[in-house]
Amino acid sequence: MNHNFHDCIQACLECLAACNECFDKCLSEDHVKMMAECIRLDRECAEICAFAAQSMQRNSPFAAQICRLCAEICEACGNECKKHDHDHCQRCAEACFKCAEACRQMAS
Amino acid sequence: MNHNFHDCIQACLECLAACNECFDKCLSEDHVKMMAECIRLDRECAEICAFAAQSMQRNSPFAAQICRLCAEICEACGNECKKHDHDHCQRCAEACFKCAEACRQMAS
Amino acid sequence: MNHNFHDCIQACLECLAACNECFDKCLSEDHVKMMAECIRLDRECAEICAFAAQSMQRNSPFAAQICRLCAEICEACGNECKKHDHDHCQRCAEACFKCAEACRQMAS
Amino acid sequence: MNHNFHDCIQACLECLAACNECFDKCLSEDHVKMMAECIRLDRECAEICAFAAQSMQRNSPFAAQICRLCAEICEACGNECKKHDHDHCQRCAEACFKCAEACRQMAS
Repeated sequence: MNHNFHDCIQACLECLAACNECFDKCLSEDHVKMMAECIRLDRECAEICAFAAQSMQRNSPFAAQICRLCAEICEACGNECKKHDHDHCQRCAEACFKCAEACRQMAS
Repeated sequence: MNHNFHDCIQACLECLAACNECFDKCLSEDHVKMMAECIRLDRECAEICAFAAQSMQRNSPFAAQICRLCAEICEACGNECKKHDHDHCQRCAEACFKCAEACRQMAS
Repeated sequence: MNHNFHDCIQACLECLAACNECFDKCLSEDHVKMMAECIRLDRECAEICAFAAQSMQRNSPFAAQICRLCAEICEACGNECKKHDHDHCQRCAEACFKCAEACRQMAS
Repeated sequence: MNHNFHDCIQACLECLAACNECFDKCLSEDHVKMMAECIRLDRECAEICAFAAQSMQRNSPFAAQICRLCAEICEACGNECKKHDHDHCQRCAEACFKCAEACRQMAS
């Protein structure tokens, strides 16, 4: 792996974990209806984070473009998650914003 | 692609489409809470169907084992979906059972 | 699924199949060394096509952006594949260019 | 995430990284032909590791079955990688065997 990618891969993997856990826990909340957008974005965000991390791990010629898209989806997911008081949503929002920042730096 | 795989790949791709559409529509239903298990299984099922179809497309030495697992997850997703009257759930159940059958035949 | 997405999803799924088959067959060629870039791009292209098709199937709010990236990767994969005379490479190039065109239209 | 899953998720993510890096480096070796099976299995193994890690992160009801399959694919990939003297292959073999062991324990 390109050494420069290390921190961004780490941020993507942490965001992936946070999004998958938030997805699981949102589905178990009493008010699932309120969490629908969070569930939807958690999934989109997990998928692009997995793709971005792997594209860097295999030195994809498209890593920068993939990370740029990843930053955009992380930002949207973080903005939705931070509206909800559940711990898993707050943790997910934090991981999303960190990952968005790392991806923007990687892509620039 | 191995010609024998053709029908099973097709069944996996149809199940993938049905599961993704059911996931999307379940999240827009009024009673999301009732659909939580359906949403969860739609995602698991979509992911294994995508993996199974691709494993056959690239002649994976593990295609049979992957299809065996796919059949099991499709069966579970179909059983959950068929409990719900929504058109998207009924269509998804049908696609799941067809895919489970195709995967079992492929794996045997 | 959004009806407008139908053709683009189809193009992505055909490109996915072509890329996975080309990947498999390139690895069995006598001169694998010559095919290295093709193998690498087949994988990148398969992954973004699977992601793009699924994002449309579940009405992702990011479908347009994902398709824009998909068009770019398909274009690059098609350009590499068309350099090689193998049938699987030529078929893959054709599927890539069709998919790139469908994705550009979808994203515009 | 279920606390019991922690070590197994970690092993899957390390194996994912090792497989993606080995894939990339194998494609740059002088004797790509010799590495063809390694390249093929690195991809299969990366995909099942990503799937297994995520299935545990979201408490999938199929996590045990997915990990059982993951163990089998990791074992095969490790056996192929360990035949080759390249550092990336040896590191990948080690990560594969560790992940196979963690997945077997998880699934039992």
